[in-house]
Amino acid sequence: MIPTPFTYFFTLRLHDTDAAGRLFFAHLFRHAHDAFENLMTALGVPLDAMISAGQTLLPLIHAEADYRQPLCHGDQVQVQVTIAEIRRRSFAIHYVFLNHHHQIAATARTIHCQINADGSAADDLSPMLRTALTSFQHSAIPL
Amino acid sequence: MIPTPFTYFFTLRLHDTDAAGRLFFAHLFRHAHDAFENLMTALGVPLDAMISAGQTLLPLIHAEADYRQPLCHGDQVQVQVTIAEIRRRSFAIHYVFLNHHHQIAATARTIHCQINADGSAADDLSPMLRTALTSFQHSAIPL
Amino acid sequence: MIPTPFTYFFTLRLHDTDAAGRLFFAHLFRHAHDAFENLMTALGVPLDAMISAGQTLLPLIHAEADYRQPLCHGDQVQVQVTIAEIRRRSFAIHYVFLNHHHQIAATARTIHCQINADGSAADDLSPMLRTALTSFQHSAIPL
Amino acid sequence: MIPTPFTYFFTLRLHDTDAAGRLFFAHLFRHAHDAFENLMTALGVPLDAMISAGQTLLPLIHAEADYRQPLCHGDQVQVQVTIAEIRRRSFAIHYVFLNHHHQIAATARTIHCQINADGSAADDLSPMLRTALTSFQHSAIPL
Repeated sequence: MIPTPFTYFFTLRLHDTDAAGRLFFAHLFRHAHDAFENLMTALGVPLDAMISAGQTLLPLIHAEADYRQPLCHGDQVQVQVTIAEIRRRSFAIHYVFLNHHHQIAATARTIHCQINADGSAADDLSPMLRTALTSFQHSAIPL
Repeated sequence: MIPTPFTYFFTLRLHDTDAAGRLFFAHLFRHAHDAFENLMTALGVPLDAMISAGQTLLPLIHAEADYRQPLCHGDQVQVQVTIAEIRRRSFAIHYVFLNHHHQIAATARTIHCQINADGSAADDLSPMLRTALTSFQHSAIPL
Repeated sequence: MIPTPFTYFFTLRLHDTDAAGRLFFAHLFRHAHDAFENLMTALGVPLDAMISAGQTLLPLIHAEADYRQPLCHGDQVQVQVTIAEIRRRSFAIHYVFLNHHHQIAATARTIHCQINADGSAADDLSPMLRTALTSFQHSAIPL
Repeated sequence: MIPTPFTYFFTLRLHDTDAAGRLFFAHLFRHAHDAFENLMTALGVPLDAMISAGQTLLPLIHAEADYRQPLCHGDQVQVQVTIAEIRRRSFAIHYVFLNHHHQIAATARTIHCQINADGSAADDLSPMLRTALTSFQHSAIPL
């Protein structure tokens, strides 16, 4: 069982920054998705296998982020990933980005919807995916 | 006077896509920001001059997008940009992404907040910026 | 007939830069590939159709760039694209990046090799591709 | 003393791929630069401190890569980094990208040139930088 929140670490690289000297905002979503990919692999439902099998696709239908503190080149960032909601054919992931002072630098949320290989909406999340997500959602470690 | 909505066009490139064969969601924000940069240049308040002068910085404090239709390699996309709101020290930009069938493929919203060179919150939007944004907000062309 | 060199224009955006205040070097290749995609579309052999048909793939086997002058946020850049060489199953594209003073800011070269759908090396460039590339290569406009 | 080659690991993410199902070639350079940043940090001359101090800048004057084997979504990649050459005011880094079969998937080379804060060419590499690079170059571990 993977404890929730799932944690993912990265260092902010030169290519993450822009001429204003901070993280270019859109790159936060790249890191959020990396954290999501790592979570899915840890849960036994890796995205790469899903995409190459071509049966189950999980395109994003929503993404949002709030930026509270600047993130700069060289910053060590911890991402805490939780499942915010599981619906019939979609689920929402919540991300908290902590800087090296353990302050919340940003938060993000992505919503993923299962579709069939032909692009039509799936009736339900695949049983394997639902089981993996549900088990993770309920595995919070007591503080 | 620049009529609102401001329109910006781009072609979806190979590097915008991923192995699932569609736009990688985070890249929508890159295109939104390109549209925003073009608008600011058209309004006479180009971001590059602002950033290199270093007096006025406009970091994003919020970004969000909804994805309705897949965007694929080679798609011609029109972005319609409007100002959703102007506040004391921040403003919100709204983006509509139309595919070549003129269907809404995605929408996005970014909120930009003015800060001083030392990172502290500005008291107000700079007069030049407020004038430019306000003039554009009120320049809707009658249909 | 498309005259050679083929020209492509872009403006250097905030996300192209990094905290050192200049183009992050790897993004030059993104712009080179955009110019290449535009050329292929102009020649009637668009990459997106090729990739979605899945019969002909043209992965890069080599890429290189030389950086001579800094490129900065807001710079208007002209890219001049020529075909440097056509071989049995591969071809080389040459790119010259001119800044707004019409100085050479960078040059680049990419080599593309045709492979079959199963990943094996193609015997030859497809006739349609060879015809398009050869016709362009010989269409230099006299100065 | 850091043994050479310096090794850096990464997993190929969805955003590294494109609609052709493989690594988009330009992203290899992003990973090469991440490996370079990690090496510089390990050598005690981190790029982020150098850039924010603003005295020593190391823009790339050349970058090249050869692609031998496809790299795909989910691939675990090892990068082996060595210093190929140290000159008066520049140095060359060599990268070997190994896939999970320990085959060479790609190689790359970058050349970095020291400039002064005003953009002029530096007379020499800074002593601290030269010492760090030279010590690493000579620290090969016997096989």
